[in-house]
Amino acid sequence: MEYLEQIGIRAKEAEAVLRTLGSEDKNKALRKAAEYLVEAESALIQANEKDMSAAREKGMAQGLLDRLALNGDRIRGMAEGLLQVAAADDPVGEVLDMKKRPNGLMIGRKRVPLGVIGIIYEARPNVTADAFGLCFKSGNVVILKGGSDALHSNEAIVTVLQRALSDCGLPRTAVQLIASQDREVTARFMKMNEYVDVLIPRGGAGLIRKVVQESTVPVIETGTGNCHIYVDASADLDMAAEILFNAKTQRIGVCNACESLVVHEAVADAFLPMAAARLSEKKVELRGDERAMEADNSIIPAGEEDWGREYLDYILSVKTVRNIDEAIAHINRYNTGHSEAIITKDYANAQRFLDEIDAAAVYVNASTRFTDGGEFGFGAEIGISTQKLHARGPMGLKELTATKYIIYGNGQIRP
Amino acid sequence: MEYLEQIGIRAKEAEAVLRTLGSEDKNKALRKAAEYLVEAESALIQANEKDMSAAREKGMAQGLLDRLALNGDRIRGMAEGLLQVAAADDPVGEVLDMKKRPNGLMIGRKRVPLGVIGIIYEARPNVTADAFGLCFKSGNVVILKGGSDALHSNEAIVTVLQRALSDCGLPRTAVQLIASQDREVTARFMKMNEYVDVLIPRGGAGLIRKVVQESTVPVIETGTGNCHIYVDASADLDMAAEILFNAKTQRIGVCNACESLVVHEAVADAFLPMAAARLSEKKVELRGDERAMEADNSIIPAGEEDWGREYLDYILSVKTVRNIDEAIAHINRYNTGHSEAIITKDYANAQRFLDEIDAAAVYVNASTRFTDGGEFGFGAEIGISTQKLHARGPMGLKELTATKYIIYGNGQIRP
Repeated sequence: MEYLEQIGIRAKEAEAVLRTLGSEDKNKALRKAAEYLVEAESALIQANEKDMSAAREKGMAQGLLDRLALNGDRIRGMAEGLLQVAAADDPVGEVLDMKKRPNGLMIGRKRVPLGVIGIIYEARPNVTADAFGLCFKSGNVVILKGGSDALHSNEAIVTVLQRALSDCGLPRTAVQLIASQDREVTARFMKMNEYVDVLIPRGGAGLIRKVVQESTVPVIETGTGNCHIYVDASADLDMAAEILFNAKTQRIGVCNACESLVVHEAVADAFLPMAAARLSEKKVELRGDERAMEADNSIIPAGEEDWGREYLDYILSVKTVRNIDEAIAHINRYNTGHSEAIITKDYANAQRFLDEIDAAAVYVNASTRFTDGGEFGFGAEIGISTQKLHARGPMGLKELTATKYIIYGNGQIRP
Repeated sequence: MEYLEQIGIRAKEAEAVLRTLGSEDKNKALRKAAEYLVEAESALIQANEKDMSAAREKGMAQGLLDRLALNGDRIRGMAEGLLQVAAADDPVGEVLDMKKRPNGLMIGRKRVPLGVIGIIYEARPNVTADAFGLCFKSGNVVILKGGSDALHSNEAIVTVLQRALSDCGLPRTAVQLIASQDREVTARFMKMNEYVDVLIPRGGAGLIRKVVQESTVPVIETGTGNCHIYVDASADLDMAAEILFNAKTQRIGVCNACESLVVHEAVADAFLPMAAARLSEKKVELRGDERAMEADNSIIPAGEEDWGREYLDYILSVKTVRNIDEAIAHINRYNTGHSEAIITKDYANAQRFLDEIDAAAVYVNASTRFTDGGEFGFGAEIGISTQKLHARGPMGLKELTATKYIIYGNGQIRP
């Protein structure tokens, strides 16, 4: 535990420097880190090869091996990510709502770094550089706990990042990696309230649940997405079919992909054969209720468990409803608070859906696939929050800041 | 546990109603609740008398008995609080930063209720009505877990509030009290992530620590205040003495009271006798370092443990420093992230203090006692957050809301 304590102490030391570090200094270090990553390509690939061969030996699945692999393109991608973050606006220092009180006090809120951010993630080495870039630009120290399968890769990347910091005269401990794979260490890391201001888990549902349940440090939950598209009675059915096809199949394994179609029964007979035909191009399996099966005979029966499933696969559940009330009730019951869309021409129904659906992002006549920091215009993102506290939806640089009140007085005392 | 489960389910049912409830309906119910509280005076005092006599029997300290007591004035105070909240602006529904993306999507953020808020507090019955008012106006359902010593009082108040809701055609379960005093029930309440969106503990340091450590539901920490006043070399010493006197003695037992004086050694000899004389009017005990004792012989020695103490008493620690760097380092080491002030005529030092001190509220030339929702112009507050996530400083109605992204499209799909 002394090991973690040391990491915590060094993080706090770096925090005091980063709290007031100017944008130019931060951008210079980010550009230097990008340069060093590209230069270190062969060393990074060598380190990654150790992880890859160990992973192959233990029979890691192909999809996970793909995520673990580093190559020249991926390394240039990481460097490019750091350059983009360097080019982004610095959120720190902005003063919001400065107001004068009747007693003459000027009270404003100023954006400041959160402090020390812990990131717990799986075996994806590119997260190491991405998370550092976003945390550093927003003035935060980051402590990384990556998956054990990527340990050599992560160590190599962090060494490069630290060298860049050091060469810019900055504390190398602004980014630290917890190398120990002891479960006790991870358990203690989640309770380091004295050193860590927030934990962000990035990965599958199991990892996130574990962090939420075990952590005493505040957590920002980045969650799964059981996203719905509701096709209203008045929908433009061609538009609905295009949006559904895009949201379901454009990328299958992501949290903002559509997992469930909800259809007003008045358009079920017209729409479901259109939708099934379009989705058959990608061999999507449709699992529906009885009314849906009546409307299109390629649809197979759905079970109760289908309504809550995030398939991340070429499968879609299909629920028919008698009216928008049923649609809203169904979606609010089964969604995971991520992204939900209505396709409609009806003004009142569009507004009701926006008002009543409880989710991070609610769409009218657009694909759920847009819930993404880049698509929302934030630049890079550290994840998509599905909780309500602090940040909801894609989290960019601003979401990695806190505020503090700054108060200018001239002798005021409280009567 | 079935008991808590039922409370959770009923809270979720009420949440769906409150999510879209209009301001007029909310204000009407708040005014009705205020009216009913005043009408119920004798019933409330009768219920409170049961708590008071049990508390007296078990020998509760006078200060705690005072907090527990209800009388006509206090009941009218609770009613007045509800009327003030009714008169305040409704934060829900405001749309922030609506922007058009290059692809034509209109993306905005809309303020929405957090959902279900749990409040865990000690034996202060007035919190029951205050917390309900703030949560309800911001569209949130509230589940209250008050101290066991106030159970009869709390039950009586909640019964009145529920009758007001019911008479306005609203779900009475928008406010519920956990009456069970079983510790297991409280422990389970702190892990009800499926029903509760955020927990806010209100009370002493022990209660808050317990909630932070045991809860898996996100917590907003309202904390203790070890607040400092730093008197810089260039300070107007008369102003400094007045502000110190106000911050230390205007109200002694509150989290924004000053607990520690930090003095530049260049003005120690001039200022400390002035400060000691002024504070002696209220018989404040000064505990200082050696240099402070040299400057004024009424000052007694401080121990290391004094620097971190929140006395909540007529005691003040006094630390001398050689420069502003030492002052900032000392304050950032020992403060609790609440409220800190510098008294100075120096522009650069004022700006440095505002930039470098890590706290919820940082003041130049004003008393720390202003850190308060009312003084900041928010109306009532639910507490003062000393954590960085979500809300920092006084939390008014806005801090009891989340946001969701609302997106208007016309057929956009992701390329």
